[in-house]
Amino acid sequence: MSQKIVIVGAVAAGPKAACRARRLLPDAEITLLDQDDLISYGGCGIPYFVSGDVADEKELRSTSFHMVRDARFFQEAKGIDVMTLTRAVSIDRKEKVVHVENVKTGQKDQLAYDKLVLATGSRPNILPIPGNDLKGVFTISSLHKAIAIKDLLAQGKVGKAVVIGGGAIGIEMAESLADLWGVETTIVEFMPQVLPRIVDPTIASMVQQHLKENGVDVFTSEAAQRFESNDEGWVSRVVTNKRELECDLVIVAAGVRPRGELAKEAGLEVSPMGAIVVNQRMQTSDPSIYAAGDCVETFNLVTGKKAYAPLGSIANRQGRVVADNLAGIPSRFDGVVGSFIMKVFDICVGSTGISTEVAKAEGYRVVNALVVQSDRAHFFPTQALMFNNIIVDSSDKRVLGLQGFASMGDGLLARINAAAGMIAQGAKISDFSNLELAYAPPFSTAVDVLNAAANAADNLVEGRLRIIPTEDFVDWMDGRADHPDWMVVDLRHPKEAEPWTKAFPERWMALVYDQVRANYESLPKDKTLILICNAGTRSYEIQVFLRSKGIENTFVLPGGLNVIRRLGVSWWH
Amino acid sequence: MSQKIVIVGAVAAGPKAACRARRLLPDAEITLLDQDDLISYGGCGIPYFVSGDVADEKELRSTSFHMVRDARFFQEAKGIDVMTLTRAVSIDRKEKVVHVENVKTGQKDQLAYDKLVLATGSRPNILPIPGNDLKGVFTISSLHKAIAIKDLLAQGKVGKAVVIGGGAIGIEMAESLADLWGVETTIVEFMPQVLPRIVDPTIASMVQQHLKENGVDVFTSEAAQRFESNDEGWVSRVVTNKRELECDLVIVAAGVRPRGELAKEAGLEVSPMGAIVVNQRMQTSDPSIYAAGDCVETFNLVTGKKAYAPLGSIANRQGRVVADNLAGIPSRFDGVVGSFIMKVFDICVGSTGISTEVAKAEGYRVVNALVVQSDRAHFFPTQALMFNNIIVDSSDKRVLGLQGFASMGDGLLARINAAAGMIAQGAKISDFSNLELAYAPPFSTAVDVLNAAANAADNLVEGRLRIIPTEDFVDWMDGRADHPDWMVVDLRHPKEAEPWTKAFPERWMALVYDQVRANYESLPKDKTLILICNAGTRSYEIQVFLRSKGIENTFVLPGGLNVIRRLGVSWWH
Repeated sequence: MSQKIVIVGAVAAGPKAACRARRLLPDAEITLLDQDDLISYGGCGIPYFVSGDVADEKELRSTSFHMVRDARFFQEAKGIDVMTLTRAVSIDRKEKVVHVENVKTGQKDQLAYDKLVLATGSRPNILPIPGNDLKGVFTISSLHKAIAIKDLLAQGKVGKAVVIGGGAIGIEMAESLADLWGVETTIVEFMPQVLPRIVDPTIASMVQQHLKENGVDVFTSEAAQRFESNDEGWVSRVVTNKRELECDLVIVAAGVRPRGELAKEAGLEVSPMGAIVVNQRMQTSDPSIYAAGDCVETFNLVTGKKAYAPLGSIANRQGRVVADNLAGIPSRFDGVVGSFIMKVFDICVGSTGISTEVAKAEGYRVVNALVVQSDRAHFFPTQALMFNNIIVDSSDKRVLGLQGFASMGDGLLARINAAAGMIAQGAKISDFSNLELAYAPPFSTAVDVLNAAANAADNLVEGRLRIIPTEDFVDWMDGRADHPDWMVVDLRHPKEAEPWTKAFPERWMALVYDQVRANYESLPKDKTLILICNAGTRSYEIQVFLRSKGIENTFVLPGGLNVIRRLGVSWWH
Repeated sequence: MSQKIVIVGAVAAGPKAACRARRLLPDAEITLLDQDDLISYGGCGIPYFVSGDVADEKELRSTSFHMVRDARFFQEAKGIDVMTLTRAVSIDRKEKVVHVENVKTGQKDQLAYDKLVLATGSRPNILPIPGNDLKGVFTISSLHKAIAIKDLLAQGKVGKAVVIGGGAIGIEMAESLADLWGVETTIVEFMPQVLPRIVDPTIASMVQQHLKENGVDVFTSEAAQRFESNDEGWVSRVVTNKRELECDLVIVAAGVRPRGELAKEAGLEVSPMGAIVVNQRMQTSDPSIYAAGDCVETFNLVTGKKAYAPLGSIANRQGRVVADNLAGIPSRFDGVVGSFIMKVFDICVGSTGISTEVAKAEGYRVVNALVVQSDRAHFFPTQALMFNNIIVDSSDKRVLGLQGFASMGDGLLARINAAAGMIAQGAKISDFSNLELAYAPPFSTAVDVLNAAANAADNLVEGRLRIIPTEDFVDWMDGRADHPDWMVVDLRHPKEAEPWTKAFPERWMALVYDQVRANYESLPKDKTLILICNAGTRSYEIQVFLRSKGIENTFVLPGGLNVIRRLGVSWWH
């Protein structure tokens, strides 16, 4: 008798498990059900559909060879039965039956299974504040919501928008509104930075500044308190703890929660946040039931702790592992490192592993090295600067994370991807120093920015490099912190340094890099010297030299003025 | 007393070792010598200088902050003594003295050392054929040669050129001549393909075709036998075993050999090919003498065998390891995986690890899976196809190599770099299937092309996927092989398939992918079915389905017509 496989949820993990299971188990009866009528779509593409980069929502649910993945497609091409508009109501584990109902007709049915796969996904967090159910307040919970938002934009009904949440989806949605549609867009983020817990504050500040330069206002450490409406009951204002923001559209992108209720009610183990607990074979606490995608809990391979990682790429990999195990192939999904990348207008930002903040909270003795360098040979015409920030445990030199900021393109991806596999395997700084990244002048530098970041981290851990955090330097320049003994030593070309020494005669002096060995005795003895150049490499070299001459009270500004220039400081010259 | 460090060779490894040693050993006396007057240049940038992308040779020897790295710079900025135009004649290891002479004046001198570093580099192979010393026959042995070639081009003296050697440097030089200068350029390669031992034949064929489309003729399996001259003694013709090629310029790019003579004559251990033997601390057989860069032998981390890897990026990493060890830091350089990438007009090609040919020669039970897929979400406007070819050992599923072909950009770099670190650590197919590459639609697909290549390799090793080598298919279509029982089943849209079924009625039939389940019984029972689509994924799915129906005599064409279209076959429709 053929095996009956029922799969609940048909967006990412579900269809992947179904199609792979079909190939591995030609005789199985496979049924895929979803409460929606639109299935098997690329949810991560929604911002690009809203922006207009993707013209038609059908493209988000088409194959690369332009067939729409609807129920007919799954039936005819894949040999998989699909029931859309069908909600799984409950699971009778003893009888091995799923009770379902049609969400339109209310008609009830039951599906017997030998193996059940739960791919029930996630739902967006709702803000528990007044007005959260007003017309014009959206979450991105389905393709239907995206279509509705795009219709509003196309009808010219949105002049101003507020996005609640400065995570990846919030920023992508803000860009989609502001860039092509010209909507005046504001992001409100509860935490002190955008992309909290994903990138360190300096990189977040560069992202925020780039958003501002592209017309998107960003307010951090700010909480939406209520949404107000106009006479037609349409949202017209977001009131935060600091201001009121007029708007015609609100998008709430405040994270997602796993849809684990069906599993929980069936008595399966779920995590405190409601994610389905699975083993590394993607098996729930009932051996006949598997789960995958946004609804499951996983492991963080860096910290060794439980994690939640709702992302389409991970859902696909987990779906494949489920299918393998359904067919008796002992594939495993061991966990995640949290690889991440996103486009923000003309730049991109990415990370893998954990941030400094997370690492500190987890008890690591953490240091981070921020390095800026040409992405390709500095003599190659298309070169641009790339920022890599490497996070390491100074007690054992293990690399915990890597973050980057660069011009839009795949150059940053090349470093994040390289780091992802290494971090997953517990690589040390020396592994990154020696990592053999492919080199040719149109692609990279002889000492790649990622190798250089590892080298800087090693110098930092060994005490050869001493840095001042960018935030501390900015606080001092902004007047929020008083350090009467600090003095900047600007090592750049005198023409570069001159506007700064003139503007800040009390705190900024110049001594060009290649004259320091001859003239270091002219440096003030009673000051703490903040060594500054464009990238930080000259500053490091001079710091080492000065130390050899007994001058110890020096600090390097990591990434130098290439970082400062991207922060939007008022005192930029 | 301060330590005396003498470093012979001042291009890549030498200056790197010198500068890092200066930072680690502030009191050491460091002397860097070179027989040339131009030092510390980016040799890999020479093709881009010749092409005109880089206007001035000074840019190749400048820092990223635009200071020229000449002797004065090293002295003033770095605190390193430099002796240019100074050749190391011999080493007296007992007395710890290097005998040197000025190559212009002949003046002799001797330099005492506590530690000696040999960074003597490589020299180009000379072809042992008549005319190899004619005017107009160049190797790329120094920046001076590059300047001379560019001068000839700028003076309009080169209408036709022949490049001997289809390796990376030969191809880069061919592009530099053909692209901006419009020189009619021909590559002559002794082996049956360009980039021999670096990429597999199918990828090499795509590169060759792209060269041809850009006006560069490529003749493989062909040997230059002599160079002939005109009345002025200038090269005018290359005679091969197959043809005569008129030309005004010949560039011989037939590989390089280590400059190990100085070491060998001093009694240091050198390899049969003349490379200096070092341990993983970059120490020669004399503990007081280190060596790094193009002059040393290293290990291949995949095969465990000795290797020779002359590349600027590796020289830099080795130079750093030398400096660390000079300063008592136990850094190691364990070997190479052979990461490689290059631009070829509008495409790029790259690899890491070993090729199928090399793997076979080393005794591995090797299979390779060639996968073609969108580099980013197929609905994202800038998407393009990327080819990944993964090489695995079928006996233990270890990944031995990865190669790729893509539109010019950093997308391929992102996959090669990710693979490099994994392969160095002995990763298996499953590690690549689960490798957490960063995902967002502007950068990648939910199942990245690299994950997909690993999945295909697994299906291949497990016998779920059966392929026909591209070369065999092309031989059949070209009439070089007779297979009367073969029949193509074209699974694409009928409109795509129709020109082919009309052109080849005897060997090409169509059955669209999503109708196979319903109509598979119409397929001929007595034929070997070659399943074809654009990428190979539909073909694989149909192969699995047909097997479940007892139809076993099927083969998938890997990468489908997306590969064939790039081979320049005469029968393309």
